[in-house]
This record gives sequence, structure tokens and C-alpha cells, in this order.
Amino acid sequence: MMATLTSREDDYSKWYNELVIKADLAENSGVKGCMVIKPYGFAIWEKMQKQLDQMFKDTGHENAYFPLFIPKSYLSKEADHVEGFAKECAVVTHYRLKNAPDGSGVIVDPDAKLEEELIVRPTSETIIWNTYKNWVKSHRDLPILINQWANVVRWEMRTRLFLRTSEFLWQEGHTAHATKEEAVEEAKKMQGVYADFVENFMGVPVIKGTKSPAERFAGAEDTYTIEAMMQDGKALQAGTSHFLGQNFAKAFDVKYQSKEGKQELVWATSWGVSTRLIGALIMTHSDDHGLVLPPNIAPIQIVIVPIHRTEEQLEEISNLANDLKKQLNQLGISVKFDDRTEYKPGWKFNEYELKGVPVRIAIGPKDLENKQVEIARRDTLEKHSHPIEGLVDHLKNLLNQIQENLYLKARNHRDSLITKVDSYEEFKTALKEKGGFISAHWDGSMEVEEKIKAETKATIRCIPLNAPEEEGICIYSGNPSKKRVLFAIAY
Amino acid sequence: MMATLTSREDDYSKWYNELVIKADLAENSGVKGCMVIKPYGFAIWEKMQKQLDQMFKDTGHENAYFPLFIPKSYLSKEADHVEGFAKECAVVTHYRLKNAPDGSGVIVDPDAKLEEELIVRPTSETIIWNTYKNWVKSHRDLPILINQWANVVRWEMRTRLFLRTSEFLWQEGHTAHATKEEAVEEAKKMQGVYADFVENFMGVPVIKGTKSPAERFAGAEDTYTIEAMMQDGKALQAGTSHFLGQNFAKAFDVKYQSKEGKQELVWATSWGVSTRLIGALIMTHSDDHGLVLPPNIAPIQIVIVPIHRTEEQLEEISNLANDLKKQLNQLGISVKFDDRTEYKPGWKFNEYELKGVPVRIAIGPKDLENKQVEIARRDTLEKHSHPIEGLVDHLKNLLNQIQENLYLKARNHRDSLITKVDSYEEFKTALKEKGGFISAHWDGSMEVEEKIKAETKATIRCIPLNAPEEEGICIYSGNPSKKRVLFAIAY
Repeated sequence: MMATLTSREDDYSKWYNELVIKADLAENSGVKGCMVIKPYGFAIWEKMQKQLDQMFKDTGHENAYFPLFIPKSYLSKEADHVEGFAKECAVVTHYRLKNAPDGSGVIVDPDAKLEEELIVRPTSETIIWNTYKNWVKSHRDLPILINQWANVVRWEMRTRLFLRTSEFLWQEGHTAHATKEEAVEEAKKMQGVYADFVENFMGVPVIKGTKSPAERFAGAEDTYTIEAMMQDGKALQAGTSHFLGQNFAKAFDVKYQSKEGKQELVWATSWGVSTRLIGALIMTHSDDHGLVLPPNIAPIQIVIVPIHRTEEQLEEISNLANDLKKQLNQLGISVKFDDRTEYKPGWKFNEYELKGVPVRIAIGPKDLENKQVEIARRDTLEKHSHPIEGLVDHLKNLLNQIQENLYLKARNHRDSLITKVDSYEEFKTALKEKGGFISAHWDGSMEVEEKIKAETKATIRCIPLNAPEEEGICIYSGNPSKKRVLFAIAY
Repeated sequence: MMATLTSREDDYSKWYNELVIKADLAENSGVKGCMVIKPYGFAIWEKMQKQLDQMFKDTGHENAYFPLFIPKSYLSKEADHVEGFAKECAVVTHYRLKNAPDGSGVIVDPDAKLEEELIVRPTSETIIWNTYKNWVKSHRDLPILINQWANVVRWEMRTRLFLRTSEFLWQEGHTAHATKEEAVEEAKKMQGVYADFVENFMGVPVIKGTKSPAERFAGAEDTYTIEAMMQDGKALQAGTSHFLGQNFAKAFDVKYQSKEGKQELVWATSWGVSTRLIGALIMTHSDDHGLVLPPNIAPIQIVIVPIHRTEEQLEEISNLANDLKKQLNQLGISVKFDDRTEYKPGWKFNEYELKGVPVRIAIGPKDLENKQVEIARRDTLEKHSHPIEGLVDHLKNLLNQIQENLYLKARNHRDSLITKVDSYEEFKTALKEKGGFISAHWDGSMEVEEKIKAETKATIRCIPLNAPEEEGICIYSGNPSKKRVLFAIAY
């Protein structure tokens, strides 16, 4: 029997850490703060990449690749940017090791010191805008719509697998436009692409909004965000898209000649999602039995487990399973037939439950006799039998149902965790008793935002795009406010 | 009219550099030795990745991801390995910048020095085997068949776009096996996968062989290689697969319990190809007009250029072109219809010739009248007309023909550049007058290999797998030899 997981109720954080390890998703490496993404975890990332990449291409973007290293002086060119990223970066200072004179191993060769230190990219705005400078001459060179899949490094002291690691994988879009309107439209469009992907593929409901000034990306004029709510009442920022104004164009002197022959500064956006999304995926759907994966993102969508006593039975089940697998594959459904004999069916059931495979099919001699199979849904843990006739259609529909059910379940849970409050007392009580999103009036000042954060750890997650205009009073300062914003304690 | 390329005859090296820039494949970045891979160049890499990734999965491999950083002490654990990689690596020594006290910008924070320096991975054997140590307990945990797509850094003083850059993209397979036989079989299998890919997708003929001890990977017992020949008579190593013996298992203490209950050291392989292959692709097929891409690897396989005087003509051509595009897309053929009006047809012809699009279709009013189109092949530069009826089949076959023709042309050229010699005088003459592969007897000693390299710059590219046993005499030492090996000057 497999060791069971700590329950979410007992210790949500411990449950998460155990689950990531036991479901074979990732583990800590020998390098502090850096993780190893194991094949099963990486297969989830590959499915996400494939879908997102197609969505980026469908919206006119191309992929390219820019250097891992950023000269220190580039980082410094945009004041807010360096302020935001200099404090947690990996710095390359030398380019060679040599044998220690005492034979004790290798040491850094002091003669191989770089003239200028290189920073391992924490994000690529500066190296990319230094490149765009040479690409943009005329209005005909715009827009530039480029995405990059890459690894980035932000030195973190306290790390957690997927959620916060010193190195992580992500994509970063970097676009250049002739007008402000076009750039703002692009930033909003990519927020929409992210929301579409996270909701419809990952089954994770999100709230679209903009960030308050204190929570904006370092160097952005506006940050569009999608915010998700985890089961424990803590929020998770699932993706951001930034309107960068002309900040990087100014810093790197990127101008174009307009149709009218004038030199104009270029407008910019950048946008990114990372392997952090896998953390959101886990924490949204999974339960005390293990991982729960929405079919659209599951590396294995259906697993078939044979239950047999004799070789003949196994052969008959194999014929049926392989035929079923073939038919399902033709519909683009991924199926694993686990006919390993060194593991018992019960062990396999636990294993695939732990790994979140959406549908499990068991076939035993009785099933063969009755021309049916037994089907178990991972989302509800319910079982039912279905005749072999019409099985493929049934399974196809079932996967769609599971996808929808997981999304609705998560959305209901999220909605139950939004509390409207009208005073700071109510705010603190709701935050303490329930967590979740607290919808409250705020006067728009950074001072109030900082005080609330210091006193409660809650931050403004976003100013929701669809929030109605509403006359109100800031819960902290009593100053007038026209819109509610969402506060939460966040990952 | 577009600026023309330097011809290959005038200056092959200059031709290459110009072509990479003018065809929009890549450019140098602001970071010494690191390149920017532009969208068109990256689209070629994506096609290569997609195909290779499928081939790896079809042979049972899974993808995973390991840290970018390697603690200095890990590198030192395998003696040959550290010898091979310590001299050209990027060393991270600090994890924070801070504002300079004099307000002049940011400086490295001396208080943020790492206890142990981190090396940006030049290759990942050490960090991976440090991980495998925890994954392998029993024979049931083997084999481990993992691949990683990643960036790596090897500090290079003299760099050339794609061919030699400080940072490059690659894939690295790392497998662990219970027996020597299995590991050797795996290393050979992946050499075969590489040869299949490079020959059948890139159209680049290769010779399969093993490396001489001096040319082996640092830490390998045997290196299986595929060697290609460029148009200028210089060889290019296109991919290597290493049998690593138990070297890394010893260095990281990776043992498994055998079926018989004994503790045994694990056997290893690693194998990789990189963005360097794009350099090989360019130098094998391209000509003085620009890039020539084999259809299997071309981001755009067919381009359609309208030739019109009136709006009505353009509309009629567009209808035909879009219909054609749709039919070809259904066959998986990528088509671009370039109906931009700001560029003239002649300009477009040059542009797509420069960018190596395999097939160009021109449609003018006369063609419409005659119900035909004009087709130009990039490989032969020949033009012909074809009726619209049966055009899709014709184009499909034409792409296959071009793919085959490019391979055969390259193979003929390569074969014409293999010279058998039986004395050191002949060797030097052939090398000087013709370059290419020189097939010669060698006594197997590292001393001779080094002397020939020092005197002629030629190295042993490989000991061909299919070379017949043949009694002979080493061209340098006069000692007996049983097999010819291939020498060449290499990229």
C-alpha cells in the first residue's frame, strides 16, 4: 500500500509539497532554489506550451531567441526596472576555472575576470530593446510581435516547487508598436489569450483586472493581470501583460520614422506566464487522494488497467484494450494501457489516482463476459459500467464533462471565496476567518495600500475590469472611492 | 535592387556571414559571443526540434528539465570532464547588485557572495547524475531514458553565428542502464537517429563513425559521431552520441540492486545536437543567390507571388492563390501568399530566393488566361509552367524531388571530396589542393594524431563504421594499421 498524503485540512502547504513529490512532478535539486522538473511534470508543461504557442501564433506572433546574459549596464538603463530586478539576480563575474595550485580541485581563475559583469536574465526587456534598436527604422518595421520560450533566474531565498524557484521556465512576449493605442490593445489582447488558456485548458477560473501602481511590473505603465484563487483561500497571479509605454524605447533610444517623416519613440508591451502555472493547476483541482488533471492538459487522458488471473484472460483483455486505444488515439485522445504484471491492479489504481489521470478503465473477466468495462472518473471518484458498444463516444463525452465539471467546481469555490466588505473591521474578520478575495473600496493611494499590507499581509490583487462604478468610501482612510478592488493574501 | 552576396568562390567565410545576416537568420548581440536567433532562423530550429523530439519519443525517451547551474564541486567529480569544460565556462559568484554609493549606477554587492560558485551548464552530465543517484535503487528503476531541450554556455573567444557561439541551444539525452551492452546499444541507436534526421530531413549526407581517443567527449569511453562535409572542403561534426561507461556512476556513486541482489554501478550514455546544425544546413545547400532550404525543414515551403496591374487582376489571382493555399495546407504543406502591394514582384523574387523558399509560384494575367502558373525551383533555379489542373499533386511531387535532389547533390559533392592517400606527402597535397576528407592509414597512436594536427591542422574526424579491414601502413609513422580513418580540417 502506498503512503498516503497529508490531508489538505491538516496542512495545506505540506499536502502540496508532498503531492508534487509523490506524483513525480518535480523535486529540489542540488542547487539551492532550483528544481528538477521530472518527466511527468514536464509532460504537463509541454502540453501547456503547445497550446499557448499555437494561440500566440494564431494572434500573429513569431518565436525568436535572445541571449541568456544581460550586461549589467543594460539593466541600469531603465530606473524602475533595475530597482525591481537588481536585488535578486545571478551575477557572472568570471569566464574560466583553473586547477588549484595545491591540487585540491578547481578554483575560479582570477585572471579571467569579465570587464563588465553579466546578469543571468531575470526577464529580457533590456537585451531585447537593445536589439530592437537596430531593427526599427521606419513605420514599415512595426509592429514587431515576438515571443521567446526561455529559462530565467530570480534569486529567491524561500522557494517552493513550481510556485517560487530561483530558475523557472516561461515565455515572454515583447512587442513594439507605432502608437500607444496599438500597444494598449496588444497588452489587453494577450491578457485575453491568457484568460482563455487558463480557464479553458487548465480549468482554472480567473478574474481579469489591472494592477495597482505598487503591484505593477518594474518598468510598466500598466499591468493587466489574471488572478486565480486557490482552495486554501490564497490568491495566485496566473499571468501578466504589461503596457510599457515608451520607457524602454527611451532607455534604449528606439525611434521610427513616421509616415509623415517625423522621428517618434516606439511603444512597447511584454507579457509572460511560467511554470508557476503548474502550481496553480495543482492547487486548484487536486484532492487528498492526489493530483486531479483536467483532460485538456493531462499527459495521459485515459488509463486502462487489466484485471486477470490467467494468461488467456490477459490476452483477451489486451486485444480489447489495444483496439480501444487505437480508436481513441484517432480522436487525439491519449491512452495508456498498463499491462505490467509486476504490479497489482490495486497498486495501479492508487498510482493513477495519485497522478490525476482523468479516466481510469478497468477490464476484468466478468466485464469481458458482459461486454462492458468499468469506468472511474478522477474528478468525482465515481464509478460506472458502460457497454463496449458506443464506448468511444461515451469516453469522448466524458472527458468533456470532466473538463467542464472541474472548471465549474473551481469557479463555484472561487465565487464562494469573494466577500464584499464595507469597513476595515469586516475586512480583517473576513480575511482571518475565510481568506479569499475581499472586495472593498480603496482610495487609490499607495499609502493605504502599503498600510493594509503591513497590517494584514493582504495586497491588492487587481482592480477588476468588469467592476461597476459605485460610490463608496475607502475602508481604511474614509476617503471617497469609485470602484471596489480585490484584496487577498497571495502566493 | 537588393545588395548581392559575396560569392562563395571569392570568400566562403564572408559569404556565410553575410548570408546569415541577410537571410534574417541570426545576428550578433550586445553580449560578446552570444547571438540573437531571429524569427526566420528560429522557425527553422523549431522545425528541427519538432522532428527530432518526435524521433526521441518514438524511441522511448521522455523530456525533463534540470537546473541551469552546476555547483563547482560537481564539475570536479569526473576528472576528464572538468579538464574538458572548466577552461571555458561562465561562473556565477554573486546573487545581488546594489546601488553604487556614489550614485553612478549598480555594482555587485560584495555581501552577496555565494559560498560555492555556480557554473552555467556547459553540458549537464554532472547535475543529472547527481539527480539520478536518488532515482536509481533497483534494476526496476532502469533504464532511465531522458532528453532535455536547453541552452548551454561554453565561453568562446572566437565565435561565428550558429557554428560557434558562447551560448547555444541544444538537446542533450542522458540515459542510465543496467548493462554495458544496453548502454552501447543506446549510444549507437541515437547515432542512427541523428544520421536519419540529418540525412532525410536536412538533406545533409553524413559519415557514421567513432571518434579517436583525442577527439572523444570529455568523460566518454567511446564517442559515436556523424560527420558532414561542407562545400568548401571543411568537415563539420553534426552530432555525437557518447558511451560514458561507468565514469559518471562512479563519480556520483549511482548503484542499483540487481535481480541477484548485488549492488552494481550503472552504465551511461549522453547525446546531443545543437543550433550548430543550422550552420551545417546553410553551408551544405546554399548558393551565391542565398539560402537553399530542403522542403522538409523549410518554414515556408511554397510562396505565391501575384503579378498584376489592376485591382481586378489581383482579386482574380488572390482567389486562385487562396484556393491553392488551402488545398496545399490540407496536405501539411506550408504556403505563403505574398500580396503586399508596397513591394514589386522582382523584389519579392529576390527576397524568397535569398531566404531559400524551395518553390516559388508566380501568377500573372497571362497565366490566368492560359489556366496555368509559373513555377520556379530554388534548388536548380529552373522555371516551368504547369496547368492549374493537377497542380497540387505536381507541387507535392516537386517538393519531394527537390528534397531528394538536394541530398543527392550534396552527397555527390561530398563523395568527390573523399581522397584516398597512402603517404604523408599525398596527404598534405590533397589537403592543400582540395581539402575534404582524406582517407588514410593511421597507427592508432595519439602521438601521431597530435603531430599531424600540429603540422596540417587536420584532425581525425572519425573511424568510419563501415570501413573494411585492410592491411596498411600508417602514413606518418610507418607502423602497421588495419583500417583507414578520415582526416579533415574541421569547423
